Amino acid sequence: MHSIMPSARLRPSPYYASTIAEGVKSFTTYNHMLMPTGYGKPEEEYWRIINGVSMWDVAVERQIQLLGPDAGRLAQILSPRDLTKCVEGQGKYVALCNHAGTLINDPILLKLADDKYWLSIADSNILFWARAIAAERGLDVAVSEPDVSPLAVQGPKAEDVVASLFGDWVRALKYFWFSETDIEGIPVAVARSGWSKQGGFELYLMDGFKGDALWNLVKEAGRPFDIGPGNPNACERIESGLLSWGGDTDDETNPFEVRMGAYVDLDVPDDVVGIGALRRIKEEGPKRHQLGALMEGQEPTQIGFYWYDIVKDGVKIGDLTNHVWSHRLEKNIGFALVSADVHPGTDVVIDKDGEAVRASLRALPFI
Amino acid sequence: MHSIMPSARLRPSPYYASTIAEGVKSFTTYNHMLMPTGYGKPEEEYWRIINGVSMWDVAVERQIQLLGPDAGRLAQILSPRDLTKCVEGQGKYVALCNHAGTLINDPILLKLADDKYWLSIADSNILFWARAIAAERGLDVAVSEPDVSPLAVQGPKAEDVVASLFGDWVRALKYFWFSETDIEGIPVAVARSGWSKQGGFELYLMDGFKGDALWNLVKEAGRPFDIGPGNPNACERIESGLLSWGGDTDDETNPFEVRMGAYVDLDVPDDVVGIGALRRIKEEGPKRHQLGALMEGQEPTQIGFYWYDIVKDGVKIGDLTNHVWSHRLEKNIGFALVSADVHPGTDVVIDKDGEAVRASLRALPFI
Repeated sequence: MHSIMPSARLRPSPYYASTIAEGVKSFTTYNHMLMPTGYGKPEEEYWRIINGVSMWDVAVERQIQLLGPDAGRLAQILSPRDLTKCVEGQGKYVALCNHAGTLINDPILLKLADDKYWLSIADSNILFWARAIAAERGLDVAVSEPDVSPLAVQGPKAEDVVASLFGDWVRALKYFWFSETDIEGIPVAVARSGWSKQGGFELYLMDGFKGDALWNLVKEAGRPFDIGPGNPNACERIESGLLSWGGDTDDETNPFEVRMGAYVDLDVPDDVVGIGALRRIKEEGPKRHQLGALMEGQEPTQIGFYWYDIVKDGVKIGDLTNHVWSHRLEKNIGFALVSADVHPGTDVVIDKDGEAVRASLRALPFI
Repeated sequence: MHSIMPSARLRPSPYYASTIAEGVKSFTTYNHMLMPTGYGKPEEEYWRIINGVSMWDVAVERQIQLLGPDAGRLAQILSPRDLTKCVEGQGKYVALCNHAGTLINDPILLKLADDKYWLSIADSNILFWARAIAAERGLDVAVSEPDVSPLAVQGPKAEDVVASLFGDWVRALKYFWFSETDIEGIPVAVARSGWSKQGGFELYLMDGFKGDALWNLVKEAGRPFDIGPGNPNACERIESGLLSWGGDTDDETNPFEVRMGAYVDLDVPDDVVGIGALRRIKEEGPKRHQLGALMEGQEPTQIGFYWYDIVKDGVKIGDLTNHVWSHRLEKNIGFALVSADVHPGTDVVIDKDGEAVRASLRALPFI
């Protein structure tokens, strides 16, 4: 791995000092911020998420706030998912699309009030996007990036940790629902969410000066449960079929291609950005879809920068996007963005820098 | 420095293998790509730019292409600089602003044809932005990111190197002008430009499979001139007063605050994004301006992630943005974004993580 040079273009998170103290070994960049990607014991960190509880600096999940009389209208215009029944305290996974129906982000939308929404975004610039649409349509809404920085607590023991901190009421929170509260003077929204399928919570810290204080509170509360540091885990999320926008998508990917069709309501109003294109794509049928690729071989693949061609009978049928060694399947696995007429069960060859790797395609998730 | 974890969200450049072969030691990320930031001999690399010639992988300067009947109209709508006299083969430095007049990027705009423009962008997502504006206004223009990856040749001997490769005609190119050509089957646009004040060229490679071939051609041509690898140089660019968008600007910075007023023409048409706000800001006077801070002390400062408060008489008057040890001035220097009523010659104190550093403010550039 290479070193990353500091720059004022790249912001550390409010938990930066804590992650350094925990011995963070590597970072990625995401929304112009640094995000920890490992603490030096990758397999131990993986099993902690599967069997225990792990705490993650995910401040890079920036919030794009829509505030004002037209906040709800803008939220709907940006999201081709029917939000009419979304209530305060509820979150929804949405597929932001451009006018061509291309997926440009896949945030959790949180409704804080009738006139206040957050989009908890993946790694693309929705601040500019939402401002452009709001301004061009003359909407009465302020679009900003407020001082909000999530800390995730993930794994089967996460609920016990978060309940011991905030009280048993958190056990009743439904998936993607949240509640604003505070703890020792630290304002947070507690949500049942997180980028793993092991269950857990995200604590949306609302004061960037109190990151280390919140980190330490969670660490203390987690001590009886053997909590440790972790991060969004490439292995767990690929096993679980969770999408990484920008890593598993390209500049032509629409929601139907990446298993997000359930989050597109074709009967939303005509002024929703991209809905016309999405209706056409749905009618014609998307050109690609996303499957899993289970690879032969027992040599763990290295996470890399590149997509690889997926070939059948000498013809390229798609791309292998992110791929990883699966600790549970004990195979290399990855996401395959392939022609819609290629079905699970198909045997293919992956051209990995000239090396031909045999693989079979299957439906997602892997586990 | 920390390690950076590979991910398919972060793309390597077409020159990646060449920079690895040259011994690159660190990277930054920029427009979701990796950019080399050093080859292990920072002072030698600096003096090579000042006195000799240096070659840089700046593929991260992505091009946003506007193509179609309304390309010129969209270029003008996005740029509050009068483009009516811009001709084919000419480039111009422009200040892209949002509807509030905030600077969202500072690209070089290149006019390739009446219906074809490139914006050679800094580190923010102008692809989404330009598409949003084009679609919302119903313009007949395709906005894309084509396969174009600049390689910079910078320093006083750069002209000799580029002339030896392409011919003496390059010596006649005016600043920011360019010409499309090819060399050994590699399509490039040769421009007199680059993010240093030492003179030089950027070779806009138009075939991502030929990065290493172009790298090697330049390296061979540069051998008599003792060319070596380098990168956009934090020291040279701060000495020279060149802006780093996102590092030296924040979410409220307008062009007048960062010495870009000369690139704003207030009499462009009313449909130019942000022009109404820019006229108001100009009339009221911007609240801040950008000066240089010359710091006391002989201990070289480390490039970091943070801005620091600039204080006068106990009151915060602005921020120190990027800062660096100047090899030519033999002082620590940085950019000061301070209240408009603070003038060059003012003595201030910089609060650097609790350490009080005395500095004096002066007009930019430093050299």
